[in-house]
Amino acid sequence: MNDTTDKTPAPRTPITLLGAGAMGTALARAWLAAGHPVTVWNRTPARAEALAADGATVARSAAEAVAASRLVILCLLDDDSVGEALEGAALAGRDLVNLTTGTPAQGRARAAWAEERGARFLDGGIMAVPPMIGAADSGAYVFYSGSAGLFEEHGETLAVPAGTRYVGADPGFAALHDVALLSAMSGMFAGLSHAFALIGGEDIRPQDLAPLLVEWLAAMAPAAHASAAALESGDYTKGVVSNLAMQVAGTSTLVRTAQEQGVSTELLSPFWDLMARRLADGHAEEDTTGVIDLLRTR
Amino acid sequence: MNDTTDKTPAPRTPITLLGAGAMGTALARAWLAAGHPVTVWNRTPARAEALAADGATVARSAAEAVAASRLVILCLLDDDSVGEALEGAALAGRDLVNLTTGTPAQGRARAAWAEERGARFLDGGIMAVPPMIGAADSGAYVFYSGSAGLFEEHGETLAVPAGTRYVGADPGFAALHDVALLSAMSGMFAGLSHAFALIGGEDIRPQDLAPLLVEWLAAMAPAAHASAAALESGDYTKGVVSNLAMQVAGTSTLVRTAQEQGVSTELLSPFWDLMARRLADGHAEEDTTGVIDLLRTR
Ligand SMILES: NC(=O)c1ccc[n+]([C@@H]2O[C@H](COP(=O)([O-])OP(=O)(O)OC[C@H]3O[C@@H](n4cnc5c(N)ncnc54)[C@H](OP(=O)(O)O)[C@@H]3O)[C@@H](O)[C@H]2O)c1
Ligand SMILES: NC(=O)c1ccc[n+]([C@@H]2O[C@H](COP(=O)([O-])OP(=O)(O)OC[C@H]3O[C@@H](n4cnc5c(N)ncnc54)[C@H](OP(=O)(O)O)[C@@H]3O)[C@@H](O)[C@H]2O)c1
Repeated sequence: MNDTTDKTPAPRTPITLLGAGAMGTALARAWLAAGHPVTVWNRTPARAEALAADGATVARSAAEAVAASRLVILCLLDDDSVGEALEGAALAGRDLVNLTTGTPAQGRARAAWAEERGARFLDGGIMAVPPMIGAADSGAYVFYSGSAGLFEEHGETLAVPAGTRYVGADPGFAALHDVALLSAMSGMFAGLSHAFALIGGEDIRPQDLAPLLVEWLAAMAPAAHASAAALESGDYTKGVVSNLAMQVAGTSTLVRTAQEQGVSTELLSPFWDLMARRLADGHAEEDTTGVIDLLRTR
Repeated sequence: MNDTTDKTPAPRTPITLLGAGAMGTALARAWLAAGHPVTVWNRTPARAEALAADGATVARSAAEAVAASRLVILCLLDDDSVGEALEGAALAGRDLVNLTTGTPAQGRARAAWAEERGARFLDGGIMAVPPMIGAADSGAYVFYSGSAGLFEEHGETLAVPAGTRYVGADPGFAALHDVALLSAMSGMFAGLSHAFALIGGEDIRPQDLAPLLVEWLAAMAPAAHASAAALESGDYTKGVVSNLAMQVAGTSTLVRTAQEQGVSTELLSPFWDLMARRLADGHAEEDTTGVIDLLRTR
């Protein structure tokens, strides 16, 4: 029996990548490893040239790189560097995917700017560090928002270095999701810092406390579902197990313990203060969801 | 064939419980359901009497309750109420288990106080809300510290309402572990509040953001292991993937986004400020572990 199926793999979508920093280099390697032709440009040529050994074509200018492939990935320092790098490049008919970290407003402005120049635009927020890129089961993913057509057409290619999550046509939403998650993480890390500070000088090993903290935080994070439900219903008192009055009373033990242990409460007292303010405003029967309203300055 | 095995269950350890508030009542019900004789006292008699229907014996005074069982559980409002309730009770030979929330110093002082009166003492910190007590697989547990002998002897009884974790002979350690976990949680909840505030007024449903936040925080909490290892080695630069210089640069996007979205940064800026201070002190190559040192006031 003759095998008549064509064993040649389907050609992979060619990619242009602007930016060969830590993240750009990791992305380039993942696409190269998957068989995509990659044209790379970096402001400082040496970093792009390091990728030539992996099979990348090095472009001498950003404009030349943009001309090489329809799908253009940007992974530069910030939004200003995106503007500088793309200055003078012919963008009409290009599909721009901007993996440069920015704010929602920057994402929206850059999308309008790209569309004016005849390009489709997708903004991305990378939820990973470079070692996770292209690694199986690393959990790395990228939030995408903007052109749904671009995302559908290139979804498979975009999924090579990390998982993909499309969060809407609004080009600001990728950045907004990215920043929301990173902000929540900042709070968690602040809490962890305080916790480790508390055991300083005690005969408790940080490595014994860490697994308890990790387990506890993972078990308590789902409280976010209750907050979300409260926000959506507008009723912050429904199904509350531990009301604000009890929680504010409970913070006094946390404050006293910090004082006993010689630990500043500066990382946590702003939250406790807002809880107390919401309680003083007459919301004893709520959970802490009301604090969210106090953060909104307009 | 005659079955000569004695089918009478082994008698359960009798328990005295002082305090029939929300938590005390949940504890009493769990022990009663498991067949333990329970003598209960509450300052306001009605709350203790409500437990009589479940099979509890109601004592008329705390002293009478303490006299009824060797194992005495305390679940009162705070450490002052423990002192008040036990005033005049004969404690010699008793095993006191104090599940009243307190600080590490209060746990230590109360242990010394109990030992002076001839009682063994175990302090506990309950990591649960009342509905989780006695419920299978609720994940509820209690940190215990103090008398190892008491814990060994009564371990099985103590495990009835919730899991048990003995964290050392120092009677302050249960409270210290309890407060460390609750403090870390405060930080996480502050971060979650900020995250939800960011999407206020946008066409993003809190219930769509919540699962992303929960997954992200659970995935990032294990960073605590790296911090613990850094603290133990004293070298905060080893194996750092995302160094402080990068992280401080990254916070500017978080700050700008908050401003764009009309959200106060008061909950997170103290952490970002300490990161910036540590960076300014010349620690660009560290991760954020150095912030912990800045929290220590002595
Ligand atoms: N690394 C991470 O953990 C991580 C995680 C998530 C998202 N990100 C985002 O990914 C993007 C790249 O990060 P990275 O880690 O690769 O940073 P990086 O290693 O510092 O690289 C920065 C890149 O931007 C280029 N660049 C800076 N200013 C420029 C300008 N004015 N014009 C043209 N190019 C300019 C640099 O070129 P030179 O080589 O010439 O300096 C370099 O290619 C950032 O937006 C970052 O926030 C990074
Ligand atoms: N509920 C929770 O989610 C939770 C979680 C973990 C830990 N805990 C801890 O468990 C303990 C009890 O909490 P709870 O939820 O049961 O509180 P609660 O419902 O407010 O009950 C407080 C109890 O303390 C008694 N009490 C207050 N002052 C007293 C005094 N001076 N002398 C004698 N008794 C006094 C009250 O008696 P009256 O009935 O006469 O007022 C009542 O039995 C607290 O330390 C709390 O921090 C609670």
